[in-house]
Amino acid sequence: MAATASSYSITMRLHTAPDHHVVGTVATSIAKGGGVVTAIDVTESRHDRLVVDVTCSAADADHSLELVAAVDAVQGVTVHKVSDRTFLLHLGGKIEVSSKVPLRTRDDLSMAYTPGVGRVSMAIHDNPEDVRKLTIKGNSVAVVTDGSAVLGLGNIGPGAALPVMEGKAALFKRFAGIDAWPICLATQDTDEIVRAVEMIAPGFGGINLEDIAAPRCFEIEARLRESLDIPVFHDDQHGTAIVVLAALTNALRCVEKQLADVRIVVSGAGAAGTAIVTLLLAAGATDVVVVDREGALATGDESLSAAHRELAAATNPRRAMGSLEDVLVGADVFIGVSAPGILEAGWIPTMAESPVVFALANPDPEIDPAEADKYAAVVASGRSDYPNQINNVLAFPGVFRGLLDASAHEVTIDMLLRAAQAIADTVSEEELHAAFIIPSVFHPDVTKRVAAAISGREG
Amino acid sequence: MAATASSYSITMRLHTAPDHHVVGTVATSIAKGGGVVTAIDVTESRHDRLVVDVTCSAADADHSLELVAAVDAVQGVTVHKVSDRTFLLHLGGKIEVSSKVPLRTRDDLSMAYTPGVGRVSMAIHDNPEDVRKLTIKGNSVAVVTDGSAVLGLGNIGPGAALPVMEGKAALFKRFAGIDAWPICLATQDTDEIVRAVEMIAPGFGGINLEDIAAPRCFEIEARLRESLDIPVFHDDQHGTAIVVLAALTNALRCVEKQLADVRIVVSGAGAAGTAIVTLLLAAGATDVVVVDREGALATGDESLSAAHRELAAATNPRRAMGSLEDVLVGADVFIGVSAPGILEAGWIPTMAESPVVFALANPDPEIDPAEADKYAAVVASGRSDYPNQINNVLAFPGVFRGLLDASAHEVTIDMLLRAAQAIADTVSEEELHAAFIIPSVFHPDVTKRVAAAISGREG
Repeated sequence: MAATASSYSITMRLHTAPDHHVVGTVATSIAKGGGVVTAIDVTESRHDRLVVDVTCSAADADHSLELVAAVDAVQGVTVHKVSDRTFLLHLGGKIEVSSKVPLRTRDDLSMAYTPGVGRVSMAIHDNPEDVRKLTIKGNSVAVVTDGSAVLGLGNIGPGAALPVMEGKAALFKRFAGIDAWPICLATQDTDEIVRAVEMIAPGFGGINLEDIAAPRCFEIEARLRESLDIPVFHDDQHGTAIVVLAALTNALRCVEKQLADVRIVVSGAGAAGTAIVTLLLAAGATDVVVVDREGALATGDESLSAAHRELAAATNPRRAMGSLEDVLVGADVFIGVSAPGILEAGWIPTMAESPVVFALANPDPEIDPAEADKYAAVVASGRSDYPNQINNVLAFPGVFRGLLDASAHEVTIDMLLRAAQAIADTVSEEELHAAFIIPSVFHPDVTKRVAAAISGREG
Repeated sequence: MAATASSYSITMRLHTAPDHHVVGTVATSIAKGGGVVTAIDVTESRHDRLVVDVTCSAADADHSLELVAAVDAVQGVTVHKVSDRTFLLHLGGKIEVSSKVPLRTRDDLSMAYTPGVGRVSMAIHDNPEDVRKLTIKGNSVAVVTDGSAVLGLGNIGPGAALPVMEGKAALFKRFAGIDAWPICLATQDTDEIVRAVEMIAPGFGGINLEDIAAPRCFEIEARLRESLDIPVFHDDQHGTAIVVLAALTNALRCVEKQLADVRIVVSGAGAAGTAIVTLLLAAGATDVVVVDREGALATGDESLSAAHRELAAATNPRRAMGSLEDVLVGADVFIGVSAPGILEAGWIPTMAESPVVFALANPDPEIDPAEADKYAAVVASGRSDYPNQINNVLAFPGVFRGLLDASAHEVTIDMLLRAAQAIADTVSEEELHAAFIIPSVFHPDVTKRVAAAISGREG
């Protein structure tokens, strides 16, 4: 039985016979079924029946249905209604707009709106840079997607992507005090996406591209960096790359190896893989081999796409060929941003001594982290139920906080390197351990250290 | 001296001799200069000096400079710093994004973001209409401008328009609980504006077009109504038209005339004028003459633009010709949405008995309302310092509240008529008076009555 998760938490409203022992029987039936009871509330007690709300976590959607059936089978119990806590949380959306100014009186209106606002508008018209001081632009980020590569769900479109973008906006506020707003575009055409972002840019201090499929995302980002005077950051690329470099920096400290000396195999040549490789090379890595479904990318392979040819040219100095299994032999580091289950545990012992395995495919990693842990010196994944969770929340809030604080016009690769180092340095020498190479997303200092690293100001 | 206004309120920080009488002298000098002192705080009292913050309202920016000079001239006083309260209020922007869900623990994150959010996204993917329930779409409005016709300031561009759009968003929240976000577009091309709004539409439940110049705004709105499945409302047109019709309904009640019988002259053939005329005709007006800078619009005039030709065809049944002065003779109603000072007081006595004068140009009306009041039976303006302020805040919050409540796909002219009637009906028979034809924007019921009129639900 897989671990239960709050994201599959349900609340069942039960009608039971007026016998308080029934509640115990219900709890037992859930535990027997592998569920975890997190709350029991008797909401109504009458002479003829009890109404009881039981909240429990399940492993997944099917498991939650099994638990409901198990409870319903308890004698004297009827399941009246089942609420999914995740869906309840989403009702009406997860973010809202609030006014920061009072609007109680006519005088308030005359300052915040007409006629007073006219003077503020004219001040910006006369001195355009003041827009960052006198409006939300200085603290706001557009979270832009076309819905083409949402989480592990694929091309589900802009409407279905909206809950993810709202979540991202909520995280921006929670971790960095940034006002982010989701922009879900009804187009998947590169030119149109570029133009849409250019057109909405005046109201924002930064653009966070999110869940846009490769290779489209590379061109979109490159063109926007060229045309806009505000920073453009594709979190799936650069956010992931920062956190991976931070984690690898500390993993190599654990196994006492140097980045310049290790052989690294990256599985996955999409947005994340490409960005990770670029940042690893900028950080001093010298031997990186990228593997996709067809095997190792190497120069001279005419079947490669333009983007993959570029990647091949920058990597694979030994011209390694063959499958993932082949190129893993003798490698020090495996970084997977590809597909579930593609790394066999038996291959890890063929790697160099003290191998490092990052299995980052979401939600299901390239290898079960517990399985990898039997063979590897350091294991990381995207999962929160194992040690060493590689989570972009460690990077993007601080990155944008730093960019906005500095009124930055662009993101540079040096900034990304400094951000990765700041995250790595958050783990002290005393804390550092194979099962603790990366701080928690709730670490109180990580956002401000990343922000300071980006902006060059004191944190 | 014009009336002072909070929107020109300043705070002067003074350093004075340690003589408390000086404070009185300062207050007197401000009063003599025509300013209104609203607060005096002695913030520091030392043996060698006092530090005093004096807040006062001025009539305009020049007047505030005069008051500063007057205070600075008081013996023993130095004005150390002048803060403009309106600018202080705008620092950092007027709106913010807040999370409606807790993000304290890993469990919270797993429900609001990955992995839990994935199930919500898939639910929307499977059943697209659920996006209104499970995301902000059901309560959110884009406030879209190209910055081409901002307040009375003209074409100041998208950045300078942002404070106005933020103010609008703040009002949406304050008066209707709606989450509105400003979208300031870096284009003034009709096709591009249309396409930009189409592309951002998936994340919003409605589009409020704002301060887009005529005639571009007509085509943009018409095309968006055609292509989008969410309502599109151009506040400068439809919001203004609703409030004008509401005010006129009650003005005619005061003078005991019927809409179908009166002669109406509308000065201004731009966005507002055109929309007002359209709504008046739909409400049953039969004799409307539109006047622009060149005089009355009449069919057969080949020099008219396409938009004005259409307007001429729908109006002026008596084929009235000539200037504003000419066509006003015998008219019952003047509605100005044009330019400051163009209505001469002397022309009002040439109108029919009990004339109604709405001088709505902002910030400076077609005629000083106090002057018009000497001759007209009912006077309204856009100014808050006179009775009968025609203010769009009476309409747009309730209109969008109703549209969102009903998950409406469009705005119909019947909705606009019902909204106007709802506003008019907010003034009871007992309250109705030539100086009270329209409720205050702070009337506790007006938004919900308008919303109910739009949605057809109970308020």
